[in-house]
Amino acid sequence: MQQRKKTAIIVAGGSGTRMKSAVPKQFMDLAGRPVLYHTIRAFADAYTDMEVVLVVPEAHFNEVRGLLADFTPLPTITLVKGGETRFHSVRNGLQQVTVDTVVFVHDGVRPLVSTTLIHTCYEAALQYGSAIPVIDMKDSIREITGEKNAAVDRDRYKIIQTPQTFLSDLILPAFDLPYNPLFTDEATVVEHLGHTVHLVPGEEANIKITRPLDLTIAAALLADRSGEPSGIR
Amino acid sequence: MQQRKKTAIIVAGGSGTRMKSAVPKQFMDLAGRPVLYHTIRAFADAYTDMEVVLVVPEAHFNEVRGLLADFTPLPTITLVKGGETRFHSVRNGLQQVTVDTVVFVHDGVRPLVSTTLIHTCYEAALQYGSAIPVIDMKDSIREITGEKNAAVDRDRYKIIQTPQTFLSDLILPAFDLPYNPLFTDEATVVEHLGHTVHLVPGEEANIKITRPLDLTIAAALLADRSGEPSGIR
Repeated sequence: MQQRKKTAIIVAGGSGTRMKSAVPKQFMDLAGRPVLYHTIRAFADAYTDMEVVLVVPEAHFNEVRGLLADFTPLPTITLVKGGETRFHSVRNGLQQVTVDTVVFVHDGVRPLVSTTLIHTCYEAALQYGSAIPVIDMKDSIREITGEKNAAVDRDRYKIIQTPQTFLSDLILPAFDLPYNPLFTDEATVVEHLGHTVHLVPGEEANIKITRPLDLTIAAALLADRSGEPSGIR
Repeated sequence: MQQRKKTAIIVAGGSGTRMKSAVPKQFMDLAGRPVLYHTIRAFADAYTDMEVVLVVPEAHFNEVRGLLADFTPLPTITLVKGGETRFHSVRNGLQQVTVDTVVFVHDGVRPLVSTTLIHTCYEAALQYGSAIPVIDMKDSIREITGEKNAAVDRDRYKIIQTPQTFLSDLILPAFDLPYNPLFTDEATVVEHLGHTVHLVPGEEANIKITRPLDLTIAAALLADRSGEPSGIR
């Protein structure tokens, strides 16, 4: 199968309000490094020709430059200013993407994504045009309707992760669409062009760090991983 | 408000197949004690007059007796044999429940439930007849329909936890209903009598241990908790 260029758009635009902390969550410490360092590392390690586009609020550019100074060798990284919503941030990042590219759009606060998952997404995107990692829902859920609530069958649902991965042919025209508040992730945008996204198995450990609790969990998972004889990456 | 008797039915019937381990997950080690020890401890500590009904497969009775030997003082505990499904196990446990009781039905593999949550469920069950702890869904989800999948609004859904808590007046007649495969939890059973269950805020840390990963997470959460100056329980 033909090789394509690879660009990872890492979106790290959160202001950190949910963490009740002055430090945005992407810059909080995880095993001695900022969360975002681990995330960039995962993509830089997955393919030697990976290009990283980092979308962050302009106010954080200096902090990001400090973090990048710790990389040897420094991966190919472009800094891009974040937008008003995730859609606008990703659209800003996509301006760095050229044709014949596999585009990974990834949450800056998912530092535990594995090389294996990045490879899986790449291969599936080549074959199907898109690759959205999903995991089973292990919790029971209820649907709330006003004052009422009722049990629903959790097997009908999947939990979405990132990297949401697409051929540039698919994602570039999708992001020419005018903004719509229904665009909560990239899959939703691409769907609006009539494409059914292709799902691939995600990873339980590929958690999103949004609460202090998640940082504790991520540290435990990372310690567990580094203790493995073979290593995950 | 009038005090009621309190019975916690702790269901620990899993065979451990998902953990790829010979030891069922309720007996796996968490901070030096079996998971189930922590779960029983949480209920015994929440109210001095709490009675615990432990529903386990008969094959595990000896293991449970060994675990109970570590309690000083020993809470009031009755051992009951598990049934074919969760419904049947809970129904077996309910045979130990008398009138004017608040009944907590709890997963044996949720060892991190806090005293605060048990108190919240008790008070809400007194007032509303039922109390089902729920937390927000923090992940994006998709609904799968055959080959298709589509984004859905996660704000419409809540994740269900235990202890599912009820007045005995409500749960005892509900479990006289004939078994129905739709009865995946106790709230669903009570709903079949026409009662809308009352939801209360659950706890992010009140996780269910179903995979090896969860045991790592639970250990980290427990270590975090014991490091807190005030302590959660």
